[in-house]
Amino acid sequence: MSLFDIFFNKKKTTAGVAKERLQIILAHERNIDDDGNIKANNPEWLSQLQNELIEVIAKYTKINADDLKVHLEKRDNIDLLEINVTLPEIK
Amino acid sequence: MSLFDIFFNKKKTTAGVAKERLQIILAHERNIDDDGNIKANNPEWLSQLQNELIEVIAKYTKINADDLKVHLEKRDNIDLLEINVTLPEIK
Repeated sequence: MSLFDIFFNKKKTTAGVAKERLQIILAHERNIDDDGNIKANNPEWLSQLQNELIEVIAKYTKINADDLKVHLEKRDNIDLLEINVTLPEIK
Repeated sequence: MSLFDIFFNKKKTTAGVAKERLQIILAHERNIDDDGNIKANNPEWLSQLQNELIEVIAKYTKINADDLKVHLEKRDNIDLLEINVTLPEIK
């Protein structure tokens, strides 16, 4: 199953709700060494990258960065950033 | 099943391949009117937003924008942009 199928199936359940939406996912998978340990490589640049992505999205959607729904999750060696935006209706 | 589970399950199958990776998904769901028609609302700003996201990612990963694997898919009222980056190993 592709990521596209997942998006598609998820969205199907919300049919009828005629909103224009953007969803952005940033997944960061870190190195694992030969012993199965995660390399403690969580550089400053990743949070800077996340902030800059949020700024770009806020600029284009004309929504305050503070109003974007940002969700961060960590599991094992994967960090996942999810941003959800419901766009203002265009008249 | 959350998007996180999907990422997590997908990545599990590549365990042992010790690469550091970034994956970025941008999904755009357009309006559907009461008759089930997609509103022909595909503004210029969305491709500009996509380009700017790619530039930001290229800047932070120090990879040429041309070298990023970018995949675009459309189905019904959803456009999906997928960017995959394998990060250079940090010495």
